[in-house]
Amino acid sequence: MELIEQHTCFGGRQEVWRHRSGVLDCEMRFAVYLPPQARQRRLPVLYWLSGLTCSEQNFITKAGAQRHAAEHGVILVAPDTSPRGDGVANDEAYDLGQGAGFYVNATQAPWSSHFRMYDYVVDELPRLVEAHFPADDRRSISGHSMGGHGALVVALRNPGRYRSASAFSPIVAPSQVAWGEKAFAAYLGDDREAWKAYDAVELLRTAPEKLPLLVDQGDADEFLESQLRPELLRAAAEVAGHPLQLRMQPGYDHSYYFIGSFIGEHIAHHAAALR
Amino acid sequence: MELIEQHTCFGGRQEVWRHRSGVLDCEMRFAVYLPPQARQRRLPVLYWLSGLTCSEQNFITKAGAQRHAAEHGVILVAPDTSPRGDGVANDEAYDLGQGAGFYVNATQAPWSSHFRMYDYVVDELPRLVEAHFPADDRRSISGHSMGGHGALVVALRNPGRYRSASAFSPIVAPSQVAWGEKAFAAYLGDDREAWKAYDAVELLRTAPEKLPLLVDQGDADEFLESQLRPELLRAAAEVAGHPLQLRMQPGYDHSYYFIGSFIGEHIAHHAAALR
Repeated sequence: MELIEQHTCFGGRQEVWRHRSGVLDCEMRFAVYLPPQARQRRLPVLYWLSGLTCSEQNFITKAGAQRHAAEHGVILVAPDTSPRGDGVANDEAYDLGQGAGFYVNATQAPWSSHFRMYDYVVDELPRLVEAHFPADDRRSISGHSMGGHGALVVALRNPGRYRSASAFSPIVAPSQVAWGEKAFAAYLGDDREAWKAYDAVELLRTAPEKLPLLVDQGDADEFLESQLRPELLRAAAEVAGHPLQLRMQPGYDHSYYFIGSFIGEHIAHHAAALR
Repeated sequence: MELIEQHTCFGGRQEVWRHRSGVLDCEMRFAVYLPPQARQRRLPVLYWLSGLTCSEQNFITKAGAQRHAAEHGVILVAPDTSPRGDGVANDEAYDLGQGAGFYVNATQAPWSSHFRMYDYVVDELPRLVEAHFPADDRRSISGHSMGGHGALVVALRNPGRYRSASAFSPIVAPSQVAWGEKAFAAYLGDDREAWKAYDAVELLRTAPEKLPLLVDQGDADEFLESQLRPELLRAAAEVAGHPLQLRMQPGYDHSYYFIGSFIGEHIAHHAAALR
C-alpha cells in the first residue's frame, strides 16, 4: 500500500492509495476520507461506487461529501471503477473495459482474467480498509449510475454485510437496457440467466433481507428513459414488499451537480443506520 | 450571450455562458450560479476569481459553493482566468498567457491587445451580469491564489464598489515573488512603478477605504513561502491600520480541498456584508 495523495479537508484527511490487488491482478487506486473523529476511535465506512468513465477522483473532487462525513463521523471509501493498466483488456468504447467494470466478476475472455470488481468491492477492499485504517466492520454502500447499480447489487446479494444502501441515478435493470446488455454480454456471456445475479430488479424479487433502499433520480436526467428506468425498481419493490424510497427530483440531471445537492441527505441516512 | 451549460443544483441553476467580450476582444466564458431565491427577486453577487491554469469550471465543480449560495441567497459569478483562443497571445508556461491573466490590463506587446482582465472583471462582466440576470449592484469579491491577488487588488482599487472582499491563499505581493515578477514584467514591462497598481501589499499602504479583508491560508501550502507570503500583507495592514483577518489554517494545502473546507465561512461573511 502506497499513499499517493493526501490533503487536509474539513479537519480530516482526504487520501488516495495505490495497492496491488490480488483479486484484480493489477495495481489499483482507491480514495479514503478520514474525518477528524478517526484520530480518536474506529469509525464506520460508507463505500461509494462511481459511474462509467470515472476513477477514484470524481467523487472526492466533485461531490462535496467530506463536509457531511466530517459532521457524522463516517469514513468514505471510493474505489476506481475497473482494473486498469497496459496488461488489462480494454475497449475503445467508454462503456466497456477500463473505466466500465460494472461491478461484476467477468466469466468471458478476455475480461475474466482481471475484471472481478464484484469480489474486489465486496471482499478485498473492505478487508484492506478495515486492516489499514481506523475503520470497524460497520459498512454502508452507495453509488452513482453504473455505481448505483453496483451498490444495489452488492447490498442485495450480501445480507447482513451492509447497514444501509442508497443510489443516485442507478442502472436498476441492466439486463433490460443497452448499457447493461452490452457489458453483460461481454463480461458474462450470452446466457441471460447468468445476468440475474447482477441485476437489482431481478435480485429484489428474492432478496432474503428487506434492507431499505434510498434512491434519488433526477427527472431531467438524459439517461432516465433509455438506461435507468427507475419505474422497474419501484414495480419490483412493490411486488416483493421491499422497502424503497424512490425520490424523483425535479429538474436534476445526471451530473455531480445532482449528487452534490443530495449527498448530504444520503450520508445522514447512512450515518443513522451506522450508529 | 449564449447559454452553453445548465444544471439544477441545490434548487437553483448552475449555468455557463459564452459571450463576445469587447474589452478582451475575444470570446469568453463565465459561470453563474443562480440560487432558488433568484426566481423571486434580485440578489447580490459574489464574484470569484480563479487561480493559474483554471477556467470557469474549477470553482463550480470543486468548491461546493452552491450549497452556501443557496442558503444565503447570493449569486455566484466565476469568469475564466484570461482571454483565450487562436488569435490570442500565449506562452507554453502554465504561469503566463492563456490561463494566467493575473487580472491586469497589459500594456506590453504581444499581450496588450487582449489581456485586459482587470477591466473585464471590474467593468464589463458586472455590467453584463447586472443586465442579464436577476442581480442588483451589491457586489463582493473573492478568489484563490492568482485570483486571491485579483480579488484583493480589484477591491482595494475600487472603493465603494464592493461590500466585502476575501481570498484563499492569495499572491499578496506579486512584485516580490517569482510568479508575479514574471507575469508583471511580461504584461506591464520593466518599470516596477507600474506594478504597484496591481500589488495588494502596495495598494494597502494608501487604500482610501478600510474595507475589512478576510484571508485564509493553509500552513501546508507548497507555495506559502515562495509565492504567497501572507506575512507581507499582515505587516502592510498593521502599518496602514487596515482591518485584516488573516487565518493560518493548520495542515491545509493549496488545493480545492482547502477552499471547499472554508468556502461556507467566506460566503457567510460576504452574505452578511451584502445584506
